[in-house]
This record gives sequence, C-alpha cells and structure tokens, in this order.
Amino acid sequence: MSSHVFDQAMAMELQADGSFAGHTSAAYANMVGPFGGISAAQMLNAVLLHPQRLGEPVSLTVNFAAALAPGPFVVVARPARTNRSTQHWMIELLQNGETVLTGTAFTALRRDTWSVDDQAMPQVPAPEQVPNGLGPIPMEWIKRYDMRPITGGMPTAWDGRGEHSLTQLWVRDNPPRTLDFASLTALADVFFPRVFVRRATLVPVGTVTMTVYYHADAAQLQASGSGYLLAQAQAQAFRNGYFDQTAQLWNQAGALLVTTHQVVYYKS
Amino acid sequence: MSSHVFDQAMAMELQADGSFAGHTSAAYANMVGPFGGISAAQMLNAVLLHPQRLGEPVSLTVNFAAALAPGPFVVVARPARTNRSTQHWMIELLQNGETVLTGTAFTALRRDTWSVDDQAMPQVPAPEQVPNGLGPIPMEWIKRYDMRPITGGMPTAWDGRGEHSLTQLWVRDNPPRTLDFASLTALADVFFPRVFVRRATLVPVGTVTMTVYYHADAAQLQASGSGYLLAQAQAQAFRNGYFDQTAQLWNQAGALLVTTHQVVYYKS
Repeated sequence: MSSHVFDQAMAMELQADGSFAGHTSAAYANMVGPFGGISAAQMLNAVLLHPQRLGEPVSLTVNFAAALAPGPFVVVARPARTNRSTQHWMIELLQNGETVLTGTAFTALRRDTWSVDDQAMPQVPAPEQVPNGLGPIPMEWIKRYDMRPITGGMPTAWDGRGEHSLTQLWVRDNPPRTLDFASLTALADVFFPRVFVRRATLVPVGTVTMTVYYHADAAQLQASGSGYLLAQAQAQAFRNGYFDQTAQLWNQAGALLVTTHQVVYYKS
Repeated sequence: MSSHVFDQAMAMELQADGSFAGHTSAAYANMVGPFGGISAAQMLNAVLLHPQRLGEPVSLTVNFAAALAPGPFVVVARPARTNRSTQHWMIELLQNGETVLTGTAFTALRRDTWSVDDQAMPQVPAPEQVPNGLGPIPMEWIKRYDMRPITGGMPTAWDGRGEHSLTQLWVRDNPPRTLDFASLTALADVFFPRVFVRRATLVPVGTVTMTVYYHADAAQLQASGSGYLLAQAQAQAFRNGYFDQTAQLWNQAGALLVTTHQVVYYKS
C-alpha cells in the first residue's frame, strides 16, 4: 500500500501509558531540526488519534521550547476538561524525558449556524498563472510543498531594502494530498520568516509559539481536496528580538479555512 | 495604604506546594462568572510572581475550559523548560481540584535590536474628543474601564443590520493606573463580542481561547503610564458556532504594545 510522505511523518503509536510514540521525519528536515509545521501537526495528531477525543479541532497553540533532535519522541495529550460538546487539551512532546514542545488544544462538536467570512480572499492570479518555486533553498521540507509566490517572495537581493512584510502564495502538498486537520496545521507554518521580507536581510530566526484557529470542519477540508490554498502572512511588529506574524489560508473556492498567528525570535 | 481595585483582584499567595491561591473579584464580575481578561491576567500573574521566572512575558495563551465560580482558586504555573535566556510555562487554574483554565506562556530576557512597527496606529480623534461610555450595560467589570468608542461601538438598535466587525476605542483603567503586563493582559480582552457588531443581534457568547503577544517590555509599559490605549479589534471568520477576533493595542504615543487573538463561541 502506498503512503504519502506526510502520512509517514504523522505515524505514531499509542503506548500502554496513553502517550504516543512518534519519530521525526528526515523528509521534512529544516536547517536545524524539523520544519516547525510538522512538529505542530504531530502535536495535534496526538489529540486527533486520542481514544477520548470529542469533536474536531477549533484551536491549537504549540510552543517551541527547545530544538527537536532527529529521532524518536513521545507526545502526551491529556484531556484537561471535557464538557458536553467541548474539550480542552494540554499537550507535551518529550525527548529523553525532557520537554521539547508544549501546547494546548480545544476541540468541539460544531453545529450549523449563521456564518460569514469577514476577511475576504484577496484578488490574485490563479495558481496555474503563477510560476512554481522559491529559488535555490537548501531545506528538505521545502520540496514537500508546491509553493507559488505571488507577492513578498524570498528576496532576490539581500540588500537591506525591504519595505513591507506581506507575502501571498499559492501552496499545496507535494505530491498533492487531500487536506485534513494535520496537513492544514503544517501548511499554516509554511511562510518563511517575515523579517527576511521586511529587511531583505538574513538573520538567525526561530518560531517560539504558534496558534492555529480552524474555521473549517472535516467536511470542508475534504471538499477542498488536494487543491491549492491561498496563504497570506504579514508581521505587525518587530521589537527587541521577537516579531509576530498573522496569517490566513483560503481554499481555491475562497473559503477561509484557517487564521494563524505566531511569534518568531530573530537576532540582529 | 491605598490599593487599586485591579491590584486587589491580582492578589495571590504562594502556597507550600508552589501553587498560588487567589480569589475571583466581584469588582470585575461579568454576566456569568468574572470578566475573562481578569482571569487571563491572574493566569499570567502566577508566572510573574513565580520565584523561578526568567525574563518578561512575550506570549500567553489562556483557554477557558469552564465557568469560574465566585470564590477561591489555585493557579499552578510550571516552568516546563528553561533555557539560557528563555522559559516556557504550562499553567492551570483549578477550583475544587477541577481544571477551569489551561494555558501556556513564554518569557524571555530581551535585548535591543533593530525594531519597527508594521501595523501603524490608525488616525483617530484624540481621547479627549471622544465621549466616554458604552451606554447602559449592566456588567460590573465595565465600570472598571474608561472606554471611548470611536467606531464599531455597541449597536444602538438590535435590528440585524450590522455590516462589519471593526471596533476602535480608547480605553484605560478606571481609576487610571500605570500600565503593567497584568493590566495590559486584561485590557487585551476588553472588546465586546464581534458578533454583536457584525450582526447587530444579541446571542449567547463566550471566549474559549485567547492569545496575547507582548511587543512592549516593562520599561515601555511604565513609560505609557496611565494614558489611554487605542484598542482595535476585528473578526476574520464567523463559522458554525465560533468566530475569531484579531486585535491591536497602541499607547497614545503610537507604539504597538500588544497584538492579541481569540476564538469566541456563539449561539444562533
């Protein structure tokens, strides 16, 4: 049976103590350690696979407390409070008994209500009209995504002349794969660091915390299929070693699937 | 010695087991339970007061797992990982041994770097030119803030005719109080629910998760004094029982102090 490289990365096994045993994925390696989006997806996956889970993810926060070493890890997902139709989770990923990632998640049984998107998808060219590729970037995980930058792509000259921090791109898994909560979580971290765009200067960076709000339910993700997502990100403030990023991902039909935020360390 | 009502609400005592014992504040009561911003501030305060704390808050996530009953509570703040200049916290607030709030925080020693705000303060009339008051709102906590709505105030007619979800207001503690991390956390939750503005319809609501990114350090908060903050909030999506809110708070000098996000349950 064939298996997508993303599914291989997500594989984890329930242990006798209720924790999940997983393994970092060389296919999603970053400069140092794994692509953070994959780690966030693995944190969520321990909730998704948990036998006591109620409902679907509405929010997830993952904090990157230390560098994940290549190799095995354990994820402990604990339902801290279960109500009639909602559930709150505390999550911790450990290696050799030490905390590497911390997090919380909120899952819920959702029902149809009055709904509207207040953040409309921007007008952009269709994915087929936008060339694929980010240029010569050596990280392995970049190859796992089909990225088509529309604006705010990786600077072509590191001349300190950046003027804004807005990036828009079309993106999907490579090879294509039907969207689900785990893959959408990874996709929510697909943006390269805002400080690169804003300054056109390469500096050391690392995400320290990331929050994902899931507006779509499983049926809407399934309906999005393996199509492209329009991903948009922007910083609001760069201040004394940390900047924030606020981002949105729409499916090709224009539905806002996820809004997501993070704080990133930068050195200068 | 006089003490501000906010400081009274923040009072908590270190217990022998390392947890903090606190108490809900009648002065900040909401329709049901306390104003969520005060609860979030109490969660942060257990980190701020913790003898092992390293650095200042950079991010905080608080999840509202159940209704806080009026009375005593215990906050357990655990440094899950301490690095050279950063620290990751897991936080839990309990009543009668049951989890009521969960959360995580990230603190860090910050140093001066290249810095810039990408989200400029909008052009608005000065606080002195904007009338105080939200109209006849019965909640006690509202009286603890001097709020001056500029746009997107509480609807004056519940006629279902809302068109957008943007609110801008000037706000500060009432009586005025010099800003600090705890009071700024509470202020980050000062917006009434976006669904009220967007729909001009009253429906049951409740915040389920809230994240605060602190761009300011303690010195900048001190320098902001007891001046007004410009607070701006907007929803991005309302979908099947949950909407998100993204917000910014600037001081009167135009420095972006905090960006903050939340997910709110709504019924319809």
